[in-house]
Amino acid sequence: MKRIEIINGPNLNLTGRREPEVYGSTTMEQYLESLQLRFPDVQIGYYQSNIEGELIDRIQQVGYEADGLIVNFGGYSHTSVALRDTLLAVTAPAIEVHISNIFAREGYRHHSLMTSACLGMVCGLGLRGYELALQALL
Amino acid sequence: MKRIEIINGPNLNLTGRREPEVYGSTTMEQYLESLQLRFPDVQIGYYQSNIEGELIDRIQQVGYEADGLIVNFGGYSHTSVALRDTLLAVTAPAIEVHISNIFAREGYRHHSLMTSACLGMVCGLGLRGYELALQALL
Amino acid sequence: MKRIEIINGPNLNLTGRREPEVYGSTTMEQYLESLQLRFPDVQIGYYQSNIEGELIDRIQQVGYEADGLIVNFGGYSHTSVALRDTLLAVTAPAIEVHISNIFAREGYRHHSLMTSACLGMVCGLGLRGYELALQALL
Amino acid sequence: MKRIEIINGPNLNLTGRREPEVYGSTTMEQYLESLQLRFPDVQIGYYQSNIEGELIDRIQQVGYEADGLIVNFGGYSHTSVALRDTLLAVTAPAIEVHISNIFAREGYRHHSLMTSACLGMVCGLGLRGYELALQALL
Amino acid sequence: MKRIEIINGPNLNLTGRREPEVYGSTTMEQYLESLQLRFPDVQIGYYQSNIEGELIDRIQQVGYEADGLIVNFGGYSHTSVALRDTLLAVTAPAIEVHISNIFAREGYRHHSLMTSACLGMVCGLGLRGYELALQALL
Amino acid sequence: MKRIEIINGPNLNLTGRREPEVYGSTTMEQYLESLQLRFPDVQIGYYQSNIEGELIDRIQQVGYEADGLIVNFGGYSHTSVALRDTLLAVTAPAIEVHISNIFAREGYRHHSLMTSACLGMVCGLGLRGYELALQALL
Amino acid sequence: MKRIEIINGPNLNLTGRREPEVYGSTTMEQYLESLQLRFPDVQIGYYQSNIEGELIDRIQQVGYEADGLIVNFGGYSHTSVALRDTLLAVTAPAIEVHISNIFAREGYRHHSLMTSACLGMVCGLGLRGYELALQALL
Amino acid sequence: MKRIEIINGPNLNLTGRREPEVYGSTTMEQYLESLQLRFPDVQIGYYQSNIEGELIDRIQQVGYEADGLIVNFGGYSHTSVALRDTLLAVTAPAIEVHISNIFAREGYRHHSLMTSACLGMVCGLGLRGYELALQALL
Amino acid sequence: MKRIEIINGPNLNLTGRREPEVYGSTTMEQYLESLQLRFPDVQIGYYQSNIEGELIDRIQQVGYEADGLIVNFGGYSHTSVALRDTLLAVTAPAIEVHISNIFAREGYRHHSLMTSACLGMVCGLGLRGYELALQALL
Amino acid sequence: MKRIEIINGPNLNLTGRREPEVYGSTTMEQYLESLQLRFPDVQIGYYQSNIEGELIDRIQQVGYEADGLIVNFGGYSHTSVALRDTLLAVTAPAIEVHISNIFAREGYRHHSLMTSACLGMVCGLGLRGYELALQALL
Amino acid sequence: MKRIEIINGPNLNLTGRREPEVYGSTTMEQYLESLQLRFPDVQIGYYQSNIEGELIDRIQQVGYEADGLIVNFGGYSHTSVALRDTLLAVTAPAIEVHISNIFAREGYRHHSLMTSACLGMVCGLGLRGYELALQALL
Amino acid sequence: MKRIEIINGPNLNLTGRREPEVYGSTTMEQYLESLQLRFPDVQIGYYQSNIEGELIDRIQQVGYEADGLIVNFGGYSHTSVALRDTLLAVTAPAIEVHISNIFAREGYRHHSLMTSACLGMVCGLGLRGYELALQALL
Repeated sequence: MKRIEIINGPNLNLTGRREPEVYGSTTMEQYLESLQLRFPDVQIGYYQSNIEGELIDRIQQVGYEADGLIVNFGGYSHTSVALRDTLLAVTAPAIEVHISNIFAREGYRHHSLMTSACLGMVCGLGLRGYELALQALL
Repeated sequence: MKRIEIINGPNLNLTGRREPEVYGSTTMEQYLESLQLRFPDVQIGYYQSNIEGELIDRIQQVGYEADGLIVNFGGYSHTSVALRDTLLAVTAPAIEVHISNIFAREGYRHHSLMTSACLGMVCGLGLRGYELALQALL
Repeated sequence: MKRIEIINGPNLNLTGRREPEVYGSTTMEQYLESLQLRFPDVQIGYYQSNIEGELIDRIQQVGYEADGLIVNFGGYSHTSVALRDTLLAVTAPAIEVHISNIFAREGYRHHSLMTSACLGMVCGLGLRGYELALQALL
Repeated sequence: MKRIEIINGPNLNLTGRREPEVYGSTTMEQYLESLQLRFPDVQIGYYQSNIEGELIDRIQQVGYEADGLIVNFGGYSHTSVALRDTLLAVTAPAIEVHISNIFAREGYRHHSLMTSACLGMVCGLGLRGYELALQALL
Repeated sequence: MKRIEIINGPNLNLTGRREPEVYGSTTMEQYLESLQLRFPDVQIGYYQSNIEGELIDRIQQVGYEADGLIVNFGGYSHTSVALRDTLLAVTAPAIEVHISNIFAREGYRHHSLMTSACLGMVCGLGLRGYELALQALL
Repeated sequence: MKRIEIINGPNLNLTGRREPEVYGSTTMEQYLESLQLRFPDVQIGYYQSNIEGELIDRIQQVGYEADGLIVNFGGYSHTSVALRDTLLAVTAPAIEVHISNIFAREGYRHHSLMTSACLGMVCGLGLRGYELALQALL
Repeated sequence: MKRIEIINGPNLNLTGRREPEVYGSTTMEQYLESLQLRFPDVQIGYYQSNIEGELIDRIQQVGYEADGLIVNFGGYSHTSVALRDTLLAVTAPAIEVHISNIFAREGYRHHSLMTSACLGMVCGLGLRGYELALQALL
Repeated sequence: MKRIEIINGPNLNLTGRREPEVYGSTTMEQYLESLQLRFPDVQIGYYQSNIEGELIDRIQQVGYEADGLIVNFGGYSHTSVALRDTLLAVTAPAIEVHISNIFAREGYRHHSLMTSACLGMVCGLGLRGYELALQALL
Repeated sequence: MKRIEIINGPNLNLTGRREPEVYGSTTMEQYLESLQLRFPDVQIGYYQSNIEGELIDRIQQVGYEADGLIVNFGGYSHTSVALRDTLLAVTAPAIEVHISNIFAREGYRHHSLMTSACLGMVCGLGLRGYELALQALL
Repeated sequence: MKRIEIINGPNLNLTGRREPEVYGSTTMEQYLESLQLRFPDVQIGYYQSNIEGELIDRIQQVGYEADGLIVNFGGYSHTSVALRDTLLAVTAPAIEVHISNIFAREGYRHHSLMTSACLGMVCGLGLRGYELALQALL
Repeated sequence: MKRIEIINGPNLNLTGRREPEVYGSTTMEQYLESLQLRFPDVQIGYYQSNIEGELIDRIQQVGYEADGLIVNFGGYSHTSVALRDTLLAVTAPAIEVHISNIFAREGYRHHSLMTSACLGMVCGLGLRGYELALQALL
Repeated sequence: MKRIEIINGPNLNLTGRREPEVYGSTTMEQYLESLQLRFPDVQIGYYQSNIEGELIDRIQQVGYEADGLIVNFGGYSHTSVALRDTLLAVTAPAIEVHISNIFAREGYRHHSLMTSACLGMVCGLGLRGYELALQALL
């Protein structure tokens, strides 16, 4: 049985509540439940924190055992050399997901430090992006 | 029955032959055949050209009737304002796909003029990226 | 009798259909007809292509005999060193026209490589810009 | 009867005298006289000042009643946020004119802060540019 | 009795009339009257000009005797080294005020040459910003 | 009764102790006490943390109920996309305060990512800046 | 017998006619004839097109069999990621030639995307540059 | 008898009073008097204004008859395309003078738009710079 | 007896395990033990956290009493204005250490915000860098 | 009999010894001997120095009499305005040679200050580049 | 008796011979002779070298005893941090001279690293610039 | 017995005399004597020159036999591609030393071209930096 860890960064705990025209009205909890139902053979872990260093801690904990990481570090994607370093340090392959199309928003969102430390990126396809990333990892 | 058009740009006719360590060894023809088999209910159109203006012609022809476009303009992604204009002009929604992780390659590949004219992007996940984009469009 | 050649680039075949709030709802064909009526003593040639190299071919063909060129290269205006080279190579004077106000749009439209290879530019004044350019050339 | 105001900025009082190979040898006074003759049904106002703030004063005075403004702010075109603000504040539509082709001259002349606050621009077509702008406004 | 001088730059004479959704519908005259009523023990001077050099003249006249300056140089804030020099030359401390939030507008408004020559800045808080600056100076 | 939340970021717990020539010698605790006395009808909340993610947590907690936020994120002001995102996500209006004049210090302090997500900014006016922001919010 | 392919891009069909003070007055056809005479043991292929994608097509056709390519893509040299990709995809080694000294002309000609995909470059030595490149390839 | 015109820009009327450690304590009036005494055979004109457009007016008035101009436009030196245009328009040769060493001060003072429109520059040598420029013009 | 505090940032808890070809295979714990043995007369404190704000807390706690700080903030070195502020706020002198040669790695590692807030830097000399910094502080 | 001077800059005395995979294993001495044999009718001078000013001295000495210069200034190519000045001062035409393909190496090698002061450049073709340059000069 | 040292850098030994339309036709030797005649009470030293390090040596030798230095480092002016360091190290005040107007030439000549290490600069006034600098030093 | 070569660049012969508040008052000669005493088993070579090319000569002479190099190229550190090339060409490992903290000084000192060609760097720790580098090399 495969183990995939989803790790979400700052403000993603507000998904479903925050700017629904950008992020939709489904909460992460609702989405994860339906995702697990569609992939009963995969052990899907989930972690969210607004604290950059706790995200680092989490990647260090699961990044050596998991079969894959799906990461969405929100605002830290664009600024955190430290998170990028952790992705490079662990052994599990990662795919970056963004719910919105970061390239159609403000200029400072057009560059993610994470992408080149991942296998690839899925962005702008809503919460469904997590599922597509999961399929690609399997 | 949905109609999805895949439009590939320069050098993608070499897929399977060109730098297989980057692009894999499956040809587009082989891949498209298997893709059609997996999605028998979708009418999947395919077009490839090395000529920028022919890609524009194609988008103008299919972009008002198709239910969705999947576009990979290769080297033109980074430089063509004209192709971007065409994507904005037609009515079908588009998703951008890149076989390789363009953000882990040369700097001039890190910026695509197409992305903000599309719903989103899938990159770095190999030929499978086309399938993921197709799922998202449906 | 003077000979003036109008040469239009990518997506201008969609004029009248594409983003009418930006480009108006008159097609180029309708406009050219009325233009010829107003200037019966001028031989007005017209050519449009979405292919950069075909535009170069056209300028090479007419640029040594025509009395003037009116050029609108759309998206190629901002990127094509090759088209600029052709304008510099031929002998007919050229005026650049843009239907919309390119300086009030996205940043990558603010710079045209063609302008300094032309006598001047008319922009933002709609299809009427072609007529004003024609008057200036006569 | 339509009212169009032409507002010229610094050094344009030297037109006809200053660098005739760039600006021609007709003075503004001569040109305006002939322009009025050709457009007897239009009330053409004219104002020139070398003082940035007096140009602002003038736009504030005529910019709420005139049917259109034709502006050529010379050297202030490239640097004056204040003049741009005034154009945005008043209600009359404006067209920017430059006698010479500013894009074929020094780099600091390639960008005008005024253009995106106007309907459009005519440049490089000599004094005739004022007439073309006037036609477009009518 | 303290003497505070308010010095306003270009287009601020249009306040209350110009883009009311940005600047509100109260005129400076109305506002100043109410301000004086609330601070009867302060001698509040007021000067407005659209001419950069007249603003310099004014600062030179009052900047050695006043107890404080409140300055809003509108469009000159972003471009005038000369006004900055004058603020540095005189002895009265100054506070910069902007009615709108200049950092939420066009990029060329994000940088004011005046701020580092003042004690500080109040921006985005409407006409009330003048009152807050006055309180801070007292 | 109005509820205003003051949220301070890294190193502001040192206020009164750290570089007194820049930040003064009053501690935040002393200042807040006097502030509450002057505004007995306002419920003034206060929170300080050196941890970026805890500041995000706090804004998420109070930012939907408070009538206004006064934020000073110290060093995070210049780098945190995540904090900016949180300000945009919640409903309470915010005003940014800086004790010192950030525009008169090192270049990397001249740009705050927060300002355009707030109503406005008060900077360089010492601890009094908090009071002025509070007045503006009421 | 060695096979060397010369591939010329836009406007090089005008050589001998276009700006003779820059490009000389010998046509490519005349030059190629004399070149073949001097190298009777080499099979020299020649192709010219103004269309970027046709150049790509040509490189794909001959780039796997030829012993060497000599490429001069004119204006496309400075902008075409797609042509660079094709050079990288095929197996024949290439040398870039420019008739004029591109480093002594406009700034946008100083950088060629092709050079680092070739063995080297010869520029500024007139049509003779093709011969020198041919010698180096043999 | 030679006629040399000295034209000073904003804040130079404060010389002798403003930041004496930078500009010295001699006033321009005192300095000019002594200068005239040392050069009895030269007709030395002097003009100062804080208004950019009045400086333009002055150059237009004297710049066709004088034998030389000595210009110090203070803060306008770094920003005024209009003043530069006027220097280029008139026939008298000009030399730029700065009392202080502008290259040892803030970065925005390191570039003067005037220098390349003058014969040369003298800077950092105090009021004596005017005399040295005068000697060079004679 | 001197007190020196070593403060390590994100991912340095992985030292000895992470990319051993870059960071070596000795763990920080092993290294610190041997370091203490070699300097029995120095009280060597050690703290590591992946959380930026906890590093700030730690510096605030020990930075007023310790005789010196040795800091290696890993990925935060390149982005954290807040940590830099804390180093400037406390009184103990600091030396920055990097195990690897940050100048021989990716461009975004070439600039550390910390260095100019420290006495100096030792980089590229492996774990031994801590010892050299310690010697320099004594 | 023609006289051609080859002038080599820093580290080129190591050719044949230094990084042979980049520069090959032939020494300059061996290469020059064979070159002279192939061109017995040309007087080939050779000079090498690691000292920038000695290269300037040499160009001054031979640059007025020689029929041509072949220059390879190694690391000084990218930084020396002084050497460029000397090339411009003397009368002999020069061709720049680089043994390796400088455009396929580090970014700071992509720009040579010499090229636009020479007739042209040959790079990336090994020691043979000197021979090709010599042919072109004859 | 005052001692003034003139130190000239690369290619200035060609003055009078090199590009006479830029630098004039008087040699430095002729000029220095006439200069000494006009200032019989000043001990004028002269040194020229094309070698950067020899210029440093010279400044170190005379820069502690001379009453003033007049320096013109030609092409090294724009690139040499080392020469700037030497000027800062010695005690004699220096004035920088350039024969031509460096601001009216190529962009890389517009910035001299020396100017802010000198009292000031004289440029564009021909060889006479040395005399003016000498007067200013006395 | 190990052989370590210390190579110092321009102005370091002034150490102890030049800006003692930056560089201290010990001369290099005094320091080297004490260094040799502390490391009697190491053969410490020393070379200093103000001439860039002589430093290159020296590295070429000792860089193939020495066990390590300690280099401080002063002002050349920031500009010399040639010296960097020499470090890369020789076989001895090098460590870069700077007496002062180059990152706390002018911006042009923040980047050394040498660092990435060395094992690492020690800066800001005074003359002691040489000793620390020596220890690291042993």
